[in-house]
Amino acid sequence: MKVKKKKKLYEGKAKIMYETDSETALIQEFKDDATAFNGKKTGQITNKGFVNNQVSAHFFKYISSFHVRTHFLDMYSDNAMVVQNLKMIPLEVVMRNIAAGSLVEKMSLNEGDRLESPLLEFYLKDDAKGDPQMTKEEILAMELASEEDVEFITRTSVKVNAILKSFLERRGILLVDFKVEYGKNKDGKIILADEISPDTCRFWDAETKERLDKDRFRKDMGGVEEAYEEVRRRVYMEVSH
Amino acid sequence: MKVKKKKKLYEGKAKIMYETDSETALIQEFKDDATAFNGKKTGQITNKGFVNNQVSAHFFKYISSFHVRTHFLDMYSDNAMVVQNLKMIPLEVVMRNIAAGSLVEKMSLNEGDRLESPLLEFYLKDDAKGDPQMTKEEILAMELASEEDVEFITRTSVKVNAILKSFLERRGILLVDFKVEYGKNKDGKIILADEISPDTCRFWDAETKERLDKDRFRKDMGGVEEAYEEVRRRVYMEVSH
Repeated sequence: MKVKKKKKLYEGKAKIMYETDSETALIQEFKDDATAFNGKKTGQITNKGFVNNQVSAHFFKYISSFHVRTHFLDMYSDNAMVVQNLKMIPLEVVMRNIAAGSLVEKMSLNEGDRLESPLLEFYLKDDAKGDPQMTKEEILAMELASEEDVEFITRTSVKVNAILKSFLERRGILLVDFKVEYGKNKDGKIILADEISPDTCRFWDAETKERLDKDRFRKDMGGVEEAYEEVRRRVYMEVSH
Repeated sequence: MKVKKKKKLYEGKAKIMYETDSETALIQEFKDDATAFNGKKTGQITNKGFVNNQVSAHFFKYISSFHVRTHFLDMYSDNAMVVQNLKMIPLEVVMRNIAAGSLVEKMSLNEGDRLESPLLEFYLKDDAKGDPQMTKEEILAMELASEEDVEFITRTSVKVNAILKSFLERRGILLVDFKVEYGKNKDGKIILADEISPDTCRFWDAETKERLDKDRFRKDMGGVEEAYEEVRRRVYMEVSH
């Protein structure tokens, strides 16, 4: 799908959205800017925009082969993709397989503990409020999504988790957790959107448990660029099924 | 049920539990000590122990007449009651009818907004962690309660809300929200426990919206003792049905 880039619609912390000459398509450009702790820590990761675009594109294409609708339409450039123009649902949907990050502090768990079953969480996309966690009941009370929407998003996220987990396992990567977002197209269909990248997932090397994601930046662990590139390399690797 | 007070089992911020000469019964004594903001603010409210004991006893008796099991067994003294010895479920169960407190900051609501339908929330009872809110999925993952337990607690809390709301309405009080706790007896039955008082509920005068609960202490509004006594007076008032 060839489109022409028009004016900037919105600039976020890690991505810029542009209008195009098509009403139904936007360009999603990935920046090298990195932020953490709700914007309190900022920096740059060389080639991050490229890696996140490439990795996200591959994941979206792979996921759609399992009949999950994604917003990915085409590549636009090395660090930008053409995506569907959606009305976004203001929720961050987090799926966890292994305890890490905020879950460790909240629950009596150690980082690395495997969860009995995948745990789904919703957070309100609202920086001013610090992205508070939301229960389903609160989502319905705030009318952020309907009960059917929440059920569809839950089922889809469980499916996406299974697809990604198995794809990554074959490439020696543990999918610890990931965050996705959803939007609605003009027909009211819910579409998987945003990105799937080392910015939004926790990837651990299955053998060494080495962190291959933004936690290297959050925790000043060094080797950030190398970890992002390693994820790209493994995602674009042919493996036996 | 006549019991003898034995050694102190546990002292909390607002109550003391004592063992008795019966294995199945404890004495729950209400203190005048008041705390707020997870113990950061402390003080004393004269007669609070008496009011909370009297009000809780009346509510427990009234609720059990609707076939809801409560831990209340008998009065012990002015500021203490005999209750069932339960294995407590470490959750605070909050039911909200009107927006107030933490909900106002979290959701885009104004204090006093009537919720579309009652909103149920679970918080982990863990001062060290700041009593974080828990989703049902997290409760199951942490094995704090089974799925059947969570469903029973939900149904019971919805019923208790309806019972209390209507009882209080007839006495000119709006039940804004309340917090309860549950425990299990030896037979594995889930029992409504803890207290139901101006410490654990938000009560507003239906006409004037005057606060008749611990928010007067939290927000240094004065007239705390008078508000507690006013709740006791109205709870023990005969009204037409």
